[in-house]
Amino acid sequence: MMAAFRDREQGKNPAADAFSFRVLAVDGDARRGEMATPHGAVATPCFMPCGTQATVKGLAPDAVRATGADILLANTYHLMLRPGAERIAALGGLHAFMHWPHAILTDSGGFQVMSLSPLRKVEDAGVTFRSHLDGATVVLTPERATEIQSLLGSDVAMQLDECVRLPAPAGELARATRLSLAWAERSKRAFETAPKGRALFGIVQGGDDQHLRAESARALVNIGFHGYAIGGLAVGEPQEEMLRTVAEVAPVLPAGQPRYLMGVGTPEDIVEAVARGIDMFDCVLPTRNGRHGLAFTRFGPINLRNSRHADDPRPLDEGSACPAARDYSRAYLHHLVKAGEMLGAVLLTTVNLAYYQELMAGMRAAIAAGRFSDFHAAAREGWARGDLPAS
Amino acid sequence: MMAAFRDREQGKNPAADAFSFRVLAVDGDARRGEMATPHGAVATPCFMPCGTQATVKGLAPDAVRATGADILLANTYHLMLRPGAERIAALGGLHAFMHWPHAILTDSGGFQVMSLSPLRKVEDAGVTFRSHLDGATVVLTPERATEIQSLLGSDVAMQLDECVRLPAPAGELARATRLSLAWAERSKRAFETAPKGRALFGIVQGGDDQHLRAESARALVNIGFHGYAIGGLAVGEPQEEMLRTVAEVAPVLPAGQPRYLMGVGTPEDIVEAVARGIDMFDCVLPTRNGRHGLAFTRFGPINLRNSRHADDPRPLDEGSACPAARDYSRAYLHHLVKAGEMLGAVLLTTVNLAYYQELMAGMRAAIAAGRFSDFHAAAREGWARGDLPAS
Repeated sequence: MMAAFRDREQGKNPAADAFSFRVLAVDGDARRGEMATPHGAVATPCFMPCGTQATVKGLAPDAVRATGADILLANTYHLMLRPGAERIAALGGLHAFMHWPHAILTDSGGFQVMSLSPLRKVEDAGVTFRSHLDGATVVLTPERATEIQSLLGSDVAMQLDECVRLPAPAGELARATRLSLAWAERSKRAFETAPKGRALFGIVQGGDDQHLRAESARALVNIGFHGYAIGGLAVGEPQEEMLRTVAEVAPVLPAGQPRYLMGVGTPEDIVEAVARGIDMFDCVLPTRNGRHGLAFTRFGPINLRNSRHADDPRPLDEGSACPAARDYSRAYLHHLVKAGEMLGAVLLTTVNLAYYQELMAGMRAAIAAGRFSDFHAAAREGWARGDLPAS
Repeated sequence: MMAAFRDREQGKNPAADAFSFRVLAVDGDARRGEMATPHGAVATPCFMPCGTQATVKGLAPDAVRATGADILLANTYHLMLRPGAERIAALGGLHAFMHWPHAILTDSGGFQVMSLSPLRKVEDAGVTFRSHLDGATVVLTPERATEIQSLLGSDVAMQLDECVRLPAPAGELARATRLSLAWAERSKRAFETAPKGRALFGIVQGGDDQHLRAESARALVNIGFHGYAIGGLAVGEPQEEMLRTVAEVAPVLPAGQPRYLMGVGTPEDIVEAVARGIDMFDCVLPTRNGRHGLAFTRFGPINLRNSRHADDPRPLDEGSACPAARDYSRAYLHHLVKAGEMLGAVLLTTVNLAYYQELMAGMRAAIAAGRFSDFHAAAREGWARGDLPAS
């Protein structure tokens, strides 16, 4: 039975490829590229919806695909605890498990260990923590994090790293950054036995210390990865601080490999980071905020909880390519959100993912045409215009 | 803007028709029929998914349609309280509001007043109750219930009735049944000013008293409605008692008009009631149980919470026409349900509605072919076989 599943999945990707990346066009520091993966091509700059527990919350995979996603992110921390990496492997891997035949990137679990586990102990060997589900003691090492991601079958795996809460003392930041580098080496070594064709990314750490950031980036490039992520940002720092770090780190990274800014961000964050040479993004904002009644649109965010929408017959954006943004009145969306109806979360998640993907597609076309700064100015103008009141 | 919405909605139903009903075939007491409504044809026997608060929980309207539904039910009680009938009317009516261009039946609110309102007072004039949302005092009369349903634009409206909790003293049952008859007359009079082409159904009451049931049915037929419902059943009584009432009431109702058994039921209940001459059903079971991890299948119910599914790669039913029943393993559905993921509710709701609709379609074909009892026997055999364990 499972073989039939796998065949069907693979049938959708006849051109399954080894991982590679090509820059197709450059406009300023912005790059239009394409990643090949064992589960299809990914046009960059790309946005990866969060499929934390092997599901983008509320959406069937074909609905996620319909928003324009080539790749999604799943969380090693969640999946190792439930339902378990070995179980998913026995069921044919994560692609078959969640019926998503396209590319998947998995994080390494490091970030969630910091943010979700009630107790954790970091040692050179790895991190020991308590499961937030049942309190069980779990050990995550660079080797195990890599193995889990291989079991899941992710197209792009991430090294295990240690994320530090900011502000942190300088000594603590340096220690954690160097530990992450040691884990990077061990992750790479462990990855050598992973099935061929998949990719492993290193993660630049260093907090708000630009010297540590540069040291981390250079050391990772020396180790050599398929791509490089910038981690430890979008954790509450001001936008200009994040963008300064991106602008300083990106040029240190190899021009011919993908750059991934983890956990970012708002539409504006993303466009600014693309302008500084970033290719890949993931963020919970479009999905989580959608579940809480907030829509992202060309004209800025719209809070559907607000009673001003109660009698408003206008759709969110009649010009959107997304049916969920065109087919339902704001009054109806307001009703669903106020009544706590699941469909409100489903529709607004769809609207938001579609807007994010539309933004990425717009940037890709603009970079290819050498008019990225015009696109950026127009996007900014739309956000600044804001939502128009009902007439 | 709203005009554009309305036009678009109506554009999908160029053959908008006045309500009518035809029996196309009869097999024993089972009937294959067709209702014409201002929002399209409804093949009977039909199952109406519950769109309580102007949404079938978790499913976009196109997904509901894809399960095979020609008509859904919405609740007057819920919609009058939130967002309000006048508001929905101003927004173009319920079909436009919820983006469902097909037929809608609305109940009268009587049943929910009994089951949801913390305080209520029944008088000849109507019922006064407290809103379960904000405690506001609300008065519902037969005239107002009819007006609300006209404002919503429902294709099939129901008379206001009084539902009595069983067991009830004989005097109390008789009083309530006669009050419901008086309200039936007033509902019909109020309906005379409703837009043309829509239908109003009377509701047979009488609890478990067969004399009262027969009296109620005859009196309603004398008043004259477009169709007749049997109310006050599926409230906890044994199945044979419910079926006995159905078997006694159905023959009293006009053969040329639709018969609706309110709030029923399990797949078995429905097939048994069709065998006794019922044409229309609604029930929360497929949607509510789907949200709670229970799947209805040809081989009986399957509880996806059960850990025996954790490693089971089989889909729920590879032979189903519903992608949600074919494309996901039981292991994945189990994971979603255990993790409290919205997608579990969405997929199982879809599976269940599709199974109910497949059952209805199977009965319609069987009646037309004069082999309803064969179909009934095969369905029973499937349910009795039960789910096969994983190999």
